[in-house]
Amino acid sequence: MKVLWLYAHPDPRSLNGSLRDAGLRKLDELGHDYRVSDLYAMGWKATVDSTDYGDHSAGERLVVASASQAAYHSGTLSPDVAAEQEKLRWADTVVVQFPLWWYGMPAILKGWFDRVFVKGFAYGVTDPAHPGRTLRYGQGPLSGKRVLTVLTSGSPEAPLGPRGINGELHHVLFPLLHGTFWYTGMSVLPPLAVYAADRLGEQGYEHYAALLRRRLESIEDIEPLPYRQQNSGDYDDNLVLRPDLAPGRSGLGVHYTGDHPVGDGGHPDDESQRLRAAAG
Amino acid sequence: MKVLWLYAHPDPRSLNGSLRDAGLRKLDELGHDYRVSDLYAMGWKATVDSTDYGDHSAGERLVVASASQAAYHSGTLSPDVAAEQEKLRWADTVVVQFPLWWYGMPAILKGWFDRVFVKGFAYGVTDPAHPGRTLRYGQGPLSGKRVLTVLTSGSPEAPLGPRGINGELHHVLFPLLHGTFWYTGMSVLPPLAVYAADRLGEQGYEHYAALLRRRLESIEDIEPLPYRQQNSGDYDDNLVLRPDLAPGRSGLGVHYTGDHPVGDGGHPDDESQRLRAAAG
Repeated sequence: MKVLWLYAHPDPRSLNGSLRDAGLRKLDELGHDYRVSDLYAMGWKATVDSTDYGDHSAGERLVVASASQAAYHSGTLSPDVAAEQEKLRWADTVVVQFPLWWYGMPAILKGWFDRVFVKGFAYGVTDPAHPGRTLRYGQGPLSGKRVLTVLTSGSPEAPLGPRGINGELHHVLFPLLHGTFWYTGMSVLPPLAVYAADRLGEQGYEHYAALLRRRLESIEDIEPLPYRQQNSGDYDDNLVLRPDLAPGRSGLGVHYTGDHPVGDGGHPDDESQRLRAAAG
Repeated sequence: MKVLWLYAHPDPRSLNGSLRDAGLRKLDELGHDYRVSDLYAMGWKATVDSTDYGDHSAGERLVVASASQAAYHSGTLSPDVAAEQEKLRWADTVVVQFPLWWYGMPAILKGWFDRVFVKGFAYGVTDPAHPGRTLRYGQGPLSGKRVLTVLTSGSPEAPLGPRGINGELHHVLFPLLHGTFWYTGMSVLPPLAVYAADRLGEQGYEHYAALLRRRLESIEDIEPLPYRQQNSGDYDDNLVLRPDLAPGRSGLGVHYTGDHPVGDGGHPDDESQRLRAAAG
């Protein structure tokens, strides 16, 4: 396996840093290849601007999608962006690890997607068999790659559960899991969340480190989230779910096929609870 | 009215730039005071790091929440952060305008919240009347301020509707509208979305500019989104919605009081459709 480990925390002495190191040791043990993009250590530039696109002339209005696509195809993307794309091409598996800040990624990591996932590379590619049909949501340039999200949150588990005040974790992460990963064709594994991260003792840390190691051991076999494919026939020509599917319902859960627990209101990530129960 | 207009697009000649200018002209006309934070023009630093906290010693592990709180209370926050906090203190109304990139804010804007909304200033304040109870979700340091989100999206309206493939807009924006604005106590106005922004002609632009002007004219009277308050009794001690409220349901819609359309699957933002119908 070839793993790209994308990591965004300002301090290597953090909980995130320890978990990353534990994860990389496990990958070594399993004999997998890996490369790490440690965004803070790299001094990653978070902000999209015209300097990303070498062939963009200063006098010209900047339309990000088309400028990025043109620079991608002409090989004039900023070298730091091109280097990240090369790592992604190489990888079959991606781990994306970050602390949840304001219910989203730290800006430096959001900026990685803003700058690296350009048109032509990550999206905006049409189906050769059906010209005019864009490959998107389950199909696309990054198809075949698996992605595991690992995050820490100050929130305990219940407030990020199905009826918790912070919103169900999978729904809070929908812009990343569905709107970014799945959009580009990647297979999205259930995220691994470290809850109550600010109050984790030594035992809590060991619990989550064990959970992470188990995920990495089985990463090739974990069932991805069953999001619906755009071009499967589930959506009409306006990209609205057909009325006979999840009839009368709405909300983000309708975009899972069948009776997946998130779609129906249950909580899919009960591995953590099971392990905790087993540990007494 | 005192408006802080927070704006994040790299090119002033963009659709976003034109809409902002139209909005500011309307505020002038209405006689409101305003200040603009044009993040790209300011060269805003997007990334949280230890240099944000003047009293943080290099050898010390960086725990962002506590380091930011300490720097806030000792007055050693980075001057650019302190200046933005001062603008927010001054404002009674905030407009947050951005292009939707990967179903979220551009990194530079996410980094504004990561850096400016520090503990003690925007959250993490306890109720003087109930020590030990944190003011959060509908109560908090930014209570009393109203916030209007204005965004552009390449997506047409239907795919961001209740059963659209991109996810219902209010749910996609939940981390910002609910998890950030409402969390800090702000009153969250229904967002104004410009759809199919890449294919907007002159007439389309005029449509949305008119919509924006109308929103600004009525901004003091618009009904905020009816999110549930944390400390209203709707949530139990684990911050999970009481079983008798929205019984048997889950998903982000349960966090609206009563039978608000997003909670029930309808689409609240039909002003755009009405205006379009009226315009023929």
